[in-house]
Amino acid sequence: MGVDISKLRFDRATDLIPVVVQEERSLEVLMLAYANRDALLKTMETGYAHYWSRERKFLWKKGETSGNVQRIVDIVADCDTDAILYVVEQTGVACHTGARSCFHNSLLSTSSNTT
Amino acid sequence: MGVDISKLRFDRATDLIPVVVQEERSLEVLMLAYANRDALLKTMETGYAHYWSRERKFLWKKGETSGNVQRIVDIVADCDTDAILYVVEQTGVACHTGARSCFHNSLLSTSSNTT
Repeated sequence: MGVDISKLRFDRATDLIPVVVQEERSLEVLMLAYANRDALLKTMETGYAHYWSRERKFLWKKGETSGNVQRIVDIVADCDTDAILYVVEQTGVACHTGARSCFHNSLLSTSSNTT
Repeated sequence: MGVDISKLRFDRATDLIPVVVQEERSLEVLMLAYANRDALLKTMETGYAHYWSRERKFLWKKGETSGNVQRIVDIVADCDTDAILYVVEQTGVACHTGARSCFHNSLLSTSSNTT
């Protein structure tokens, strides 16, 4: 079922919604970030992932500096409309460490599983 | 690289960390939920996904009522240790609506893409 942006439940305290980011082809989970309404609108308008930086407090386009942009394939809300999924085509890597995905620190093993 | 639970950055206001949940075999993103330290410890101890319910304010085991439990395959922290990924083997479906994944409301189309 389709859903409208006006139906999304941004956090009442922060005005943000968490965004899970998944690579379209590999299906790898790349990162978790946050969007406010402006970041989401900018993402929908431009077709490239934008987020709200909680630390630096500004709207940013992923890859604006590094070139590692994320082209939007789909944006999907969850059943209670308080989280969204960006399905993206990732250019280069998602993580600033150089890893493909930001999720690369296992809590269940002490061995490296950076990909 | 492995990481210890003591290194995780739970939200200072809520003591929670967001948890992305992914199915091991299909690689489908099933849901986004939250854990406090107790929920994460219970997950690691039992090998089954536990979360903190922000609305009902208690620790719950996924599937305790429905039987749709999530066996833990891996738990992975992200690069800045403020989000985690549960890689799980999902029994039945993840969503209370009966959908396999809670993410089934596209913002980019009005057609149904419930799976």
